[in-house]
Amino acid sequence: MSITDNTIRNGVDTATLFATLDAVKGDTDIADFRFRATNTWLSGTHSRSVIHAFHGAKQEMTHRQPFAFDADHPPILVGTDNGPTPVEFLLHALAACLTAGIANIAAARGVNLTEVSSTVEGDIDLLGILGLSDEVRNGYQEVRVSFTLRGDDPDKLRSVVEQSRRRSAVFDVMTNGVPVSIDVDAG
Amino acid sequence: MSITDNTIRNGVDTATLFATLDAVKGDTDIADFRFRATNTWLSGTHSRSVIHAFHGAKQEMTHRQPFAFDADHPPILVGTDNGPTPVEFLLHALAACLTAGIANIAAARGVNLTEVSSTVEGDIDLLGILGLSDEVRNGYQEVRVSFTLRGDDPDKLRSVVEQSRRRSAVFDVMTNGVPVSIDVDAG
Repeated sequence: MSITDNTIRNGVDTATLFATLDAVKGDTDIADFRFRATNTWLSGTHSRSVIHAFHGAKQEMTHRQPFAFDADHPPILVGTDNGPTPVEFLLHALAACLTAGIANIAAARGVNLTEVSSTVEGDIDLLGILGLSDEVRNGYQEVRVSFTLRGDDPDKLRSVVEQSRRRSAVFDVMTNGVPVSIDVDAG
Repeated sequence: MSITDNTIRNGVDTATLFATLDAVKGDTDIADFRFRATNTWLSGTHSRSVIHAFHGAKQEMTHRQPFAFDADHPPILVGTDNGPTPVEFLLHALAACLTAGIANIAAARGVNLTEVSSTVEGDIDLLGILGLSDEVRNGYQEVRVSFTLRGDDPDKLRSVVEQSRRRSAVFDVMTNGVPVSIDVDAG
């Protein structure tokens, strides 16, 4: 590992970041990750997921605690509003992924950030999921992300956002799609 | 509205569900929804999203409370593990969406459920997002959902899962992708 910079910038430990990149270059199997969520139906549209264990760096690992998240529908969509709708979690995932990338990339480039905030909106026509139109898709028709960044030179900030978009896992999944298989044990 | 069934089944108020379908058939503008999340960067890869207001049924609405969710990276990915990674929230969203659909569709068909649980796994090779390979995508390469259902006849349960897949908003977004635009205000 070559540790050439031990500065903490934007809350990112850049020395560890560069050391991690070097470690992965030396053994690319480290980069194979498998993430998991387990979900339990509670009642109606209300369910709860727990996120805890994952596989990475050639070993089973856990987050420092199990994280639990409820999802539900609001009353207007015949739910009891015990949590956001599933589609709203997609917007959170997208904002969080792009923002983490912005912080990392800015730190790696020596760009200081003082603010990164965003609003993500998604348009959805429920005629699709309600089965009332075969011409309307089930999911979002369009998603818009609006970032506000403050810190160093605006051109550098915009360039950091662009690079984050180019390397975002969630942006890739949401714009390009991914194969999803579903198995059912019905007893 | 034709309210022909006031049974609560699987925690789903089927009378309200059918009434909602009838209402949307009568005025399809009701079905135009817009969901939102606002995200604030905290430090490093740690950010927090708040989900509260949304537009639907021709009006601005709010969830009964603002829901806040932290996302972060674990230490192995140079974060401080204040929450799941953004890509794990995708798995939660997928499980929750399919499960809500299962409960609704089963109720509408008069199928009783006693258990719906699932595990969702996603494989990701971080050589993509680390910029170490141009041949590896940034996002998941494959996602697998494993459902366990208990209740009425197994064939009916499997059929309910299949219909939920066919009408899931998150499944559609994650398998087919959606156009995402990003605007930046860099000051």
